[in-house]
Amino acid sequence: MDSNVNLLVVSAHAADFVWRSGGAIAKYIKHGANVTLIILSYGVRGESNDLWNIEGQTVENVKKIRREEIGQAAGHLGITQMEIWDYEDYHMKLTDERMEQMVCKIRETAPHHILTHGFKDAFNPDHEAVGKFVFDASVLSTSNGVRYDGYPTTKQARLFGFEPHQSEISDFKPDVIMDITETYEQKEAAMNCFKAQKHLIEYYGAKAKLRGNHARRVSGNNQYQYAEAFSRCFPYVGGEFN
Amino acid sequence: MDSNVNLLVVSAHAADFVWRSGGAIAKYIKHGANVTLIILSYGVRGESNDLWNIEGQTVENVKKIRREEIGQAAGHLGITQMEIWDYEDYHMKLTDERMEQMVCKIRETAPHHILTHGFKDAFNPDHEAVGKFVFDASVLSTSNGVRYDGYPTTKQARLFGFEPHQSEISDFKPDVIMDITETYEQKEAAMNCFKAQKHLIEYYGAKAKLRGNHARRVSGNNQYQYAEAFSRCFPYVGGEFN
Amino acid sequence: MDSNVNLLVVSAHAADFVWRSGGAIAKYIKHGANVTLIILSYGVRGESNDLWNIEGQTVENVKKIRREEIGQAAGHLGITQMEIWDYEDYHMKLTDERMEQMVCKIRETAPHHILTHGFKDAFNPDHEAVGKFVFDASVLSTSNGVRYDGYPTTKQARLFGFEPHQSEISDFKPDVIMDITETYEQKEAAMNCFKAQKHLIEYYGAKAKLRGNHARRVSGNNQYQYAEAFSRCFPYVGGEFN
Amino acid sequence: MDSNVNLLVVSAHAADFVWRSGGAIAKYIKHGANVTLIILSYGVRGESNDLWNIEGQTVENVKKIRREEIGQAAGHLGITQMEIWDYEDYHMKLTDERMEQMVCKIRETAPHHILTHGFKDAFNPDHEAVGKFVFDASVLSTSNGVRYDGYPTTKQARLFGFEPHQSEISDFKPDVIMDITETYEQKEAAMNCFKAQKHLIEYYGAKAKLRGNHARRVSGNNQYQYAEAFSRCFPYVGGEFN
Amino acid sequence: MDSNVNLLVVSAHAADFVWRSGGAIAKYIKHGANVTLIILSYGVRGESNDLWNIEGQTVENVKKIRREEIGQAAGHLGITQMEIWDYEDYHMKLTDERMEQMVCKIRETAPHHILTHGFKDAFNPDHEAVGKFVFDASVLSTSNGVRYDGYPTTKQARLFGFEPHQSEISDFKPDVIMDITETYEQKEAAMNCFKAQKHLIEYYGAKAKLRGNHARRVSGNNQYQYAEAFSRCFPYVGGEFN
Amino acid sequence: MDSNVNLLVVSAHAADFVWRSGGAIAKYIKHGANVTLIILSYGVRGESNDLWNIEGQTVENVKKIRREEIGQAAGHLGITQMEIWDYEDYHMKLTDERMEQMVCKIRETAPHHILTHGFKDAFNPDHEAVGKFVFDASVLSTSNGVRYDGYPTTKQARLFGFEPHQSEISDFKPDVIMDITETYEQKEAAMNCFKAQKHLIEYYGAKAKLRGNHARRVSGNNQYQYAEAFSRCFPYVGGEFN
Repeated sequence: MDSNVNLLVVSAHAADFVWRSGGAIAKYIKHGANVTLIILSYGVRGESNDLWNIEGQTVENVKKIRREEIGQAAGHLGITQMEIWDYEDYHMKLTDERMEQMVCKIRETAPHHILTHGFKDAFNPDHEAVGKFVFDASVLSTSNGVRYDGYPTTKQARLFGFEPHQSEISDFKPDVIMDITETYEQKEAAMNCFKAQKHLIEYYGAKAKLRGNHARRVSGNNQYQYAEAFSRCFPYVGGEFN
Repeated sequence: MDSNVNLLVVSAHAADFVWRSGGAIAKYIKHGANVTLIILSYGVRGESNDLWNIEGQTVENVKKIRREEIGQAAGHLGITQMEIWDYEDYHMKLTDERMEQMVCKIRETAPHHILTHGFKDAFNPDHEAVGKFVFDASVLSTSNGVRYDGYPTTKQARLFGFEPHQSEISDFKPDVIMDITETYEQKEAAMNCFKAQKHLIEYYGAKAKLRGNHARRVSGNNQYQYAEAFSRCFPYVGGEFN
Repeated sequence: MDSNVNLLVVSAHAADFVWRSGGAIAKYIKHGANVTLIILSYGVRGESNDLWNIEGQTVENVKKIRREEIGQAAGHLGITQMEIWDYEDYHMKLTDERMEQMVCKIRETAPHHILTHGFKDAFNPDHEAVGKFVFDASVLSTSNGVRYDGYPTTKQARLFGFEPHQSEISDFKPDVIMDITETYEQKEAAMNCFKAQKHLIEYYGAKAKLRGNHARRVSGNNQYQYAEAFSRCFPYVGGEFN
Repeated sequence: MDSNVNLLVVSAHAADFVWRSGGAIAKYIKHGANVTLIILSYGVRGESNDLWNIEGQTVENVKKIRREEIGQAAGHLGITQMEIWDYEDYHMKLTDERMEQMVCKIRETAPHHILTHGFKDAFNPDHEAVGKFVFDASVLSTSNGVRYDGYPTTKQARLFGFEPHQSEISDFKPDVIMDITETYEQKEAAMNCFKAQKHLIEYYGAKAKLRGNHARRVSGNNQYQYAEAFSRCFPYVGGEFN
Repeated sequence: MDSNVNLLVVSAHAADFVWRSGGAIAKYIKHGANVTLIILSYGVRGESNDLWNIEGQTVENVKKIRREEIGQAAGHLGITQMEIWDYEDYHMKLTDERMEQMVCKIRETAPHHILTHGFKDAFNPDHEAVGKFVFDASVLSTSNGVRYDGYPTTKQARLFGFEPHQSEISDFKPDVIMDITETYEQKEAAMNCFKAQKHLIEYYGAKAKLRGNHARRVSGNNQYQYAEAFSRCFPYVGGEFN
Repeated sequence: MDSNVNLLVVSAHAADFVWRSGGAIAKYIKHGANVTLIILSYGVRGESNDLWNIEGQTVENVKKIRREEIGQAAGHLGITQMEIWDYEDYHMKLTDERMEQMVCKIRETAPHHILTHGFKDAFNPDHEAVGKFVFDASVLSTSNGVRYDGYPTTKQARLFGFEPHQSEISDFKPDVIMDITETYEQKEAAMNCFKAQKHLIEYYGAKAKLRGNHARRVSGNNQYQYAEAFSRCFPYVGGEFN
């Protein structure tokens, strides 16, 4: 892997980046890539069900707990560049100001690849909105006429969509099956930071094995044990079949 | 590009491999890959319209002309391993014996990639039949229980589908846009060997430019001038976003 | 569950019925339904890879081993009515005579539901052929003019499609998520009869848990632990939303 | 039918609930279910064409007429719990406040099933907006962190989509064909309350017969005479094929 | 309408041409077009259910009855050029010889338009096979190298697909809604010739009204009372939006 | 062509109407149709990349340059009725006031056909928004209850969607291939007015030839040299196959 790669990950809620791309993130960091993580919200309203079962729970306290979990998980994956933008979730409002913020972040980080939510995600309206938001920002970031001082245009980034929780009813197609065998342990450690979501830890562990099976079947390569799946937004462009 | 790559190209009729993948073939050969071309038919019935306008034309003479054209075109692309299986076209019959022949050829050549027709091609029933035929052969070639003496099983090859003549009504999606800038001249020379099909030479020349434009727009890389598009049959499996 | 239900299961190869519907079969039998299993082939050529790794292996011996495995697995599920039609697989030929055989079997068993392969299954041409074959047979079985002595017409059966191994690239949509919590142990015991396919035992065990997670998420019912998914061929027709 | 079923119907305009689900509503009420009807608008701007042909027509008068028609129609169907929220239509604005209103209504009524517009409806932008609005509300209503005093969370309701006026160009698939033979007379009486829309009364009468034909053909059950079709938003989850 | 139009109709079974295109046929004949009807089978096995309920029924007698019905119906529509090819139905075998027969018929009649079955028709495998068969024949008929003495090539005909019985689950899209108001009475008279199929007469009568409603809604033209829907196989090519 | 035809063209940015429909516009004008062009924005931010490369560029200056280019291009096509609404682009905001403006314009011009952007256009969020906006306006313009003084309702216009830049990944299907041979020179002259976009001039020139090839292949009519492709929003409704 070319260590000059810039990778930008945009996660709608606190833990999405771990379940859906923790292995890929750790792998890119391990190989020297420059990885930036943007977390748009703490997922206070939509993705902290269990925390709200605690008597006397408050918004501030949920944020505090999630901030700690995020920090630990990011540590396991080796993430050093991370921002939490603290948008309200469920429904997430993606205003013009926020679009400008995202365009500037893309221009600043000049990503070769962006990992974020795809355009369809049954049961999760925020994910769908974020997928469209990041896509539009990536297009605007390339346009000379969309001018923000100090943020010159970038090349069009390649967008890769996270696997949604229920893939088939979200019309998800696995265009990329990324081998994460070498960093799966890190992903597992990161997942275990979200203690209140035991059922998801088990779920995404099983997923990684299933995708590993698919990787072996498609490629005939038996070294693949764990994998993550992504959709792609554009065709592959380049010089080799792969 | 890794020069140990084995590439198998299966062309339903005489000239399909040139229009649809001539640039990619020449590029792989140039970089040292091991390329085998199988042409299933001379396209006597379905793809030699102009030759049949000549008074007194015969099947044997059409084959002779097409054989010469193929030879010249293959020469321009640098192809040295080529077989013409001389099936009748329009409709092409893909019998059990022919399936065995194809399975054995796949096992013999052990291709990493196969380029052939996709599953849908409006206006061309042969192309659709060949797409399914090669796909099935590639699956059978991996199975231990499908036994032909002297032909041990291979790993599952990656299949890439040619762009059909009218892409949208054939439900074609360009999953791969292959840069062929460095070998476009060879492709042009190869296309010019099919003198009776002037309108196609012009057509596929224009196509290569349009796909070059798409390549630039998607990647932001302005070096891409000419390209060919392919669909893929399976997800990409591997270790890098690209 | 109404104990007067007739259920027909048609499995292309030896073990398909276990991986894809073992829990549902066991459940229907447990509740008194009348279940018939038709296995079209031993899967000698296409689905016995590991057995062929044994030195000196023969077709007859593979069949013998698979027959024993099938018998044990069927026992764990409680199946008492089973036929193995011993068609050759990879490719399976579905002739007119075999169509008549299937039409007569459908008329004889008068199934309310048929479980079999869906119309699309990436990597498995036999499964696709069988899906279409059983569907056509179910239509012919209702027609008064398709006459076989001793086999009067039946009502149109409801067809449910097995989940293929790689669901998304087979365009599989889970129309039915069947809770199999009460019979999952039986399914596990049945899966374990196919010792040579350890990776599949693990795979379908993980699948059952993931589908259980989906069942809980969609329904809000936390009792669902294990599930199997099926597509449906026709709309639900009846008197209640469910 | 279990008489403890809670059914919530959300109708974008005055008469949608009658054309698209009048038979199902009457049937559920007849069998003891607890049915609540929410009508979001009087359809003054977009669905009262004929009333506006009357000289000197006013918004208030159109509302008055439609209110009377709704009342009569609801009476024929046996509806006792009904609210008209009087949103402006064409375009309907579905603000955050309205989302809160809908979430609270779903939590209050705790529906097992929700009948409302599907996600696509050619010629009717309001229907599409309402379909998405109710879906999102149903998801938010299950989340512990979306907190409104006095409205505790509910389980995820099953959503069923109305058949749009022109089904095929709206990508509508009839996942459920509901037999309404026993309540068709009530539906007919309800339809006749909308005197100004004669062409629709005839249209939806013919539709009910066509869907009855489909019901017979799919099931082989000749008792079905009239039916209504619905799409489903999620897979069926449960314990029986049906 | 240009009276030099050649229209070819290919009907899989005895009555398909009436239910699905009777109005369009009568209209074209009325305006002077040159219409040829090919009926591939009597529908003895698959589409004569009611006749087989008669004690002592025979294949020959069913054919005789259907031949009379066809003759009467064709008379009502004004058809003078008709052939019945008497293929066996359910399953219909479409051999190479039959392909040649169809290619020659297309070349002989040189149709501008062909009306026949579309590529997908749930519940009717014969219709699907015929749709593909006629399409392929239309392509072969244009090819100079597919040579049959006395049958010179034709231009590519435009293909229009009949509406299948259950449109949505057959993925049917109404690309063309043909006004048949002026010939609907003839269609009704033709439908009434198939006395044993009362339910279909009622069904296709209701369909014609529904499609008339769609025609009015899409066009704003209130003269349209009855219509038939067709899919198209290719784009419209020409000089005007319409 | 009937010279009483009203054609409305709605272009999101300065030059869209030329690239995507210049030939069709010129043809309609040549044959006496009444053509109105609405340009929603100058494309200052999203579609004037090259102009912003000039040192000291300003928004006002970009508008001035584009206004001149538009004027010249419109002149070549023969357009006499044109309005530039000067919305800001990238992102274009389509407010209620703008919807009213569009509804009134549709009612004023009473178009038989509207040419505008389709619903999906990869890489161009503005195009997608405008497609939906014009569609909704066309529906609202027919409704009696949507009342604006001086703007009586119109019949539903037929909507035709422009071909997007990258057709396949925008899910574009060419429903209409419009022959523009007789006005291609005018289109070429109009394209040449946008000097800063040389690559697009070449691109859309090549496109016109490719679509001409498709037109010949589909129709068998060799007179077609240049064409433009459009999708259609509704079925064709009328009295003839074409």
